[in-house]
Amino acid sequence: MKNSFGDSISITLFGESHGPAIGAIIDGLSPGIKVDEDFIKKQLSLRRPQGRISTPRSEQDKFSILSGVHNGYTCGTPVCITIENSDVKTKDYASLQCLPRPSHADFTAREKYHGFEFSAGGGHFSGRITASIVAAAAIIIPALNKKGIYIGTHIKRIADIFDRDFSDYSADIDYLSNNYFAVLDKSASQRMNEKIISIANEGDSIGGILETAVCGMPAGVGEPWFDTVEGKISHALFSIPAVKAVEFGAGFLFADMCGCEANDVFIVNDGKIKTKTNNNGGVLGGISSGMPIIFRCAVKPTPTISKLQKTVDMKTLEEADILAPGRHDPCIVHRARIVVDSITALTIADMLAFRYGTDWLA
Amino acid sequence: MKNSFGDSISITLFGESHGPAIGAIIDGLSPGIKVDEDFIKKQLSLRRPQGRISTPRSEQDKFSILSGVHNGYTCGTPVCITIENSDVKTKDYASLQCLPRPSHADFTAREKYHGFEFSAGGGHFSGRITASIVAAAAIIIPALNKKGIYIGTHIKRIADIFDRDFSDYSADIDYLSNNYFAVLDKSASQRMNEKIISIANEGDSIGGILETAVCGMPAGVGEPWFDTVEGKISHALFSIPAVKAVEFGAGFLFADMCGCEANDVFIVNDGKIKTKTNNNGGVLGGISSGMPIIFRCAVKPTPTISKLQKTVDMKTLEEADILAPGRHDPCIVHRARIVVDSITALTIADMLAFRYGTDWLA
Amino acid sequence: MKNSFGDSISITLFGESHGPAIGAIIDGLSPGIKVDEDFIKKQLSLRRPQGRISTPRSEQDKFSILSGVHNGYTCGTPVCITIENSDVKTKDYASLQCLPRPSHADFTAREKYHGFEFSAGGGHFSGRITASIVAAAAIIIPALNKKGIYIGTHIKRIADIFDRDFSDYSADIDYLSNNYFAVLDKSASQRMNEKIISIANEGDSIGGILETAVCGMPAGVGEPWFDTVEGKISHALFSIPAVKAVEFGAGFLFADMCGCEANDVFIVNDGKIKTKTNNNGGVLGGISSGMPIIFRCAVKPTPTISKLQKTVDMKTLEEADILAPGRHDPCIVHRARIVVDSITALTIADMLAFRYGTDWLA
Amino acid sequence: MKNSFGDSISITLFGESHGPAIGAIIDGLSPGIKVDEDFIKKQLSLRRPQGRISTPRSEQDKFSILSGVHNGYTCGTPVCITIENSDVKTKDYASLQCLPRPSHADFTAREKYHGFEFSAGGGHFSGRITASIVAAAAIIIPALNKKGIYIGTHIKRIADIFDRDFSDYSADIDYLSNNYFAVLDKSASQRMNEKIISIANEGDSIGGILETAVCGMPAGVGEPWFDTVEGKISHALFSIPAVKAVEFGAGFLFADMCGCEANDVFIVNDGKIKTKTNNNGGVLGGISSGMPIIFRCAVKPTPTISKLQKTVDMKTLEEADILAPGRHDPCIVHRARIVVDSITALTIADMLAFRYGTDWLA
Repeated sequence: MKNSFGDSISITLFGESHGPAIGAIIDGLSPGIKVDEDFIKKQLSLRRPQGRISTPRSEQDKFSILSGVHNGYTCGTPVCITIENSDVKTKDYASLQCLPRPSHADFTAREKYHGFEFSAGGGHFSGRITASIVAAAAIIIPALNKKGIYIGTHIKRIADIFDRDFSDYSADIDYLSNNYFAVLDKSASQRMNEKIISIANEGDSIGGILETAVCGMPAGVGEPWFDTVEGKISHALFSIPAVKAVEFGAGFLFADMCGCEANDVFIVNDGKIKTKTNNNGGVLGGISSGMPIIFRCAVKPTPTISKLQKTVDMKTLEEADILAPGRHDPCIVHRARIVVDSITALTIADMLAFRYGTDWLA
Repeated sequence: MKNSFGDSISITLFGESHGPAIGAIIDGLSPGIKVDEDFIKKQLSLRRPQGRISTPRSEQDKFSILSGVHNGYTCGTPVCITIENSDVKTKDYASLQCLPRPSHADFTAREKYHGFEFSAGGGHFSGRITASIVAAAAIIIPALNKKGIYIGTHIKRIADIFDRDFSDYSADIDYLSNNYFAVLDKSASQRMNEKIISIANEGDSIGGILETAVCGMPAGVGEPWFDTVEGKISHALFSIPAVKAVEFGAGFLFADMCGCEANDVFIVNDGKIKTKTNNNGGVLGGISSGMPIIFRCAVKPTPTISKLQKTVDMKTLEEADILAPGRHDPCIVHRARIVVDSITALTIADMLAFRYGTDWLA
Repeated sequence: MKNSFGDSISITLFGESHGPAIGAIIDGLSPGIKVDEDFIKKQLSLRRPQGRISTPRSEQDKFSILSGVHNGYTCGTPVCITIENSDVKTKDYASLQCLPRPSHADFTAREKYHGFEFSAGGGHFSGRITASIVAAAAIIIPALNKKGIYIGTHIKRIADIFDRDFSDYSADIDYLSNNYFAVLDKSASQRMNEKIISIANEGDSIGGILETAVCGMPAGVGEPWFDTVEGKISHALFSIPAVKAVEFGAGFLFADMCGCEANDVFIVNDGKIKTKTNNNGGVLGGISSGMPIIFRCAVKPTPTISKLQKTVDMKTLEEADILAPGRHDPCIVHRARIVVDSITALTIADMLAFRYGTDWLA
Repeated sequence: MKNSFGDSISITLFGESHGPAIGAIIDGLSPGIKVDEDFIKKQLSLRRPQGRISTPRSEQDKFSILSGVHNGYTCGTPVCITIENSDVKTKDYASLQCLPRPSHADFTAREKYHGFEFSAGGGHFSGRITASIVAAAAIIIPALNKKGIYIGTHIKRIADIFDRDFSDYSADIDYLSNNYFAVLDKSASQRMNEKIISIANEGDSIGGILETAVCGMPAGVGEPWFDTVEGKISHALFSIPAVKAVEFGAGFLFADMCGCEANDVFIVNDGKIKTKTNNNGGVLGGISSGMPIIFRCAVKPTPTISKLQKTVDMKTLEEADILAPGRHDPCIVHRARIVVDSITALTIADMLAFRYGTDWLA
């Protein structure tokens, strides 16, 4: 089973960017989880393009829950959510069929599917597919919150503009959940917006770094070989096509430290064993320590840009120029953050259900 | 199944650092792979501590193949390899039972296993367990080589000392395979060794960054949601207890680029579609592109050091000092590289067997 | 992942009997399989109730393919098929909510889902769900046929009326594929129909035995521990709620034989090793032998009958009478046969894809 | 992963009949299960050949626990048990290499493994492999017992000699657990023994039917599509090479019943909802009902007999005679029963751990 993720709670995604609908199956949800359609809508709105910093493609993300929910609660059976594709302009892509866009999956899709892929708009590789992840996770997130587990992601960096660090996790996560452009420092937020618009005006694109905190995760979750907390989360994150790097806690900065700096000393706090620092990002030996799980991921610049690029005709093997038609985002970092939140929620919930059983989440 | 990895070719690890033996089951190997015991020994020797840059614990890594190999070839049935633990000094650890070593898994193991863990020497979380990964992969690596697939890892960085980049992959990988301390630039190699010894003399430890190249991987391998090449490899890598960060291609540097710099333009080379640059590290949309797969991982400083550290007694919840007894490595970066090579080989082989069938590897 | 089946080609079912739609995701299909919507319709028609031997509930089984198929061919990405529920009369079931129907899953669903199940019409346990299996398999069956693999199921027995044995597999399977009531002997067919109608008139129900042949299966498919051909097929078959017994080859009759009668002697036929008899039903040691795979399964009488039965109120724990409202089948054996064919096709295809790779089926 | 079984608690078997050792990995056991080595020995003794009704091959089944158990309790990490092969007479099989024994896996192993299989003594397909299942389950069975779950299997039938039905499950299961030849009716037991000896004297073999009861299973365990109680148990049972049929409750007899006879009417018993009859064998809609789980499986006659049989040389394709050398069992039904008990225990424990979490079994 290669296009599903999760053992106890699993998600399977389906759909192509320009097909009739996209969607997800979530299996393994406890019966009795309250499903809040308004919250699903709100979460989808955080992923939807808004303003000049995003693509003009405007999907209403009208979703239907076909199964597994009854009278406002999960039944315990597989939940199928579908989301209509309405604002599709396939002819934008007609000219592209043999010209793979640089850094996009057009070429590798052809290698894998031998030309049978439904490639318009990126097909099954489109960022559009992530809307299903957001909708699916929007059932799980309130249930995790009821258990005291909160997830928040902010834009740590766009170009050379940095957001401040998390300080009060609870307040920061609450703040982020109500802001489309998830930056904690308002001045940084404004400068990042200006930077994106300036890049958009050049017809170019830009990436950035997202940072996520998971608070309230119980200690003792995860498996040493091979289903570590880090392994499971990174496995999920790298499915987001633009994510190219993942680090936990101090991450690559560990290379600058010696052991006596890097080690997180144990202390007692409120009668519980905690660590004074959290360089390990809430995970020791692959197992959650009860400290906040902290990770960052790099989001590469949107591959589709409005500049002429070199490519190769996949049929004739002749070099060619490509000027990508279609509508695209100058930056997807701000839209990706809710996808990161969502995919993290699914992964965490799966690990908890494995540990505590199938009724635990309700 | 949480303590196994792989769908078509899978590995399950067992054993504790101070138990009678550690080992691995590898299932799904094609029948007819030639098994070279000398190569297994050589690979194990690359992981074994040597000289003043490593722990004085000296395991001979005497292994036995209990099943799945007959007359020098794999049978197609599960292969069980066991490796004896001989140089065990459990009493070193007797005093530690309730004092978790900072940044080690002692505390999280207790949270997970409720005190039933066999914790001496790190138990099932010990780096010792990785010897089984090396032995298992040593069956697969020559088979991958016969298919034209080569894997090599070098120490990219120790403290502020950097190795040169890969230049000629084929020659570089060949060079690395015959050197215990896997650094391409001899002068950097010497300075790194000196740095490690100096850190060891202080009773401290140090981490670093490893960089891996996989050459010859066919295009079209991987699945978009969720078994991407990056997702599978990172999932496996994060099982190595000291690995805290993984990046592919340009990785976190993507945050410094705009789209027109980041995009890998397609070109024709030897009648095949290639990319001019390889910022995406050989993976587009989660699928291999046929370019070398390039990734780096951060290895944190060895948690066990010879300095007094603060910790908490897990029974009494009182703060305590800990001066870790036992033997430890001032640096494990150089020993970890063959583990990274090995776990990558297992992951790659699994993805290939899924795509091309169970007989493919022979 | 508990509500999916298959490793290389997997199916996940969703939907409730009285929800808006039911459906299936099929993942792992090779790209380039021709999808024949007329064949899907035909297969669904073989499952649909017809005449006095079936329920009057009349579903048109209008299906939509939401993903994974483009220009009439599979893309290689997950295929989502949905089937509308149109002829739903939920109020028939309103009175039943606390009164579990004997031998149905009402009671066990309550135990499992704690009352959150959407139980009307049997909910997720309804035979209605099997329509999705039939639709999904209708994509795979023509692809298997192109590889020379044919599957056919006939009604071996209803009450004391027996069909003749398979004789010419090829002709028999072809005959069955074009007949709604899948019996090889026309006289037996007529007597079975009369028997069912007579049982229906009494307000009772009846079961029977189905026998299946899979021809053209290559030798060497299956795994000894634990994914045997028998284990995988039986695992799938027992999901059909009415199936309570599965036997391969001589099955329970082996208890009447001694070794020299039971053993299938090897012979050479057309230059290939075959067996003279086929008591082992095409499977030796769990691995396909190249002989036809033969199995039978028992289908219990439809639990819902028009007679007054004893039951217990699940809330009050008081005994109560139940006279099942709603529409039901006096016999589902004839409708189940295409489900058996279909679920067998999915299982076989999965095992073949695992062995020969993900491109094999196209 | 094809040679493992189980999601939350899984078993992987390894070893060949004439290799140095066989064994099992059991992963997912809760930490803190008491491991009773004497009970493991006792269970292995119930599988070991005894007297004239069994093969003269006499293995001591000396086992070692290499990992996952410390101070007499499970650690929560993977348990590896190995069992030495000591009484190996490989030269008995030297003459057989190209002559497949009828009804044995020699031929299908060759088709699957292309001649690389280690076929002596049946290799990885040998009944010998089941000793590892028995040893592994012997860790789990006492833990299930502590939870009030008891499993017992008796020989329902050998030739035309039938054992009595289960009457008092508790007493019967207790009786069976202490008897090597698991028959409830002493007179039937004696006649069965005489029958086996008489068949042995003819150089022939005989099969039979085993019947199993699982008492104390909580209601609400299992999944509708596709991990039903019946599907999981049958999947596991069919791995036992001689098992060719599995039926639950009334099984194939359902074909003789109409609905009003077959349906199990609900009643209240001791304040709990039960059924008056148990034709469904404790499973409704694939989910456990709280009634005893009852199933029967057919064990075919041992394929290896002392009579001359026809076969085909796999190299030359010429017909040949075979007089199987080596030592063999005239009947394995009595030895298989503890394997059925054991594999059932593993399956049940896996389903319970999935439902109630990873700590549940301790």
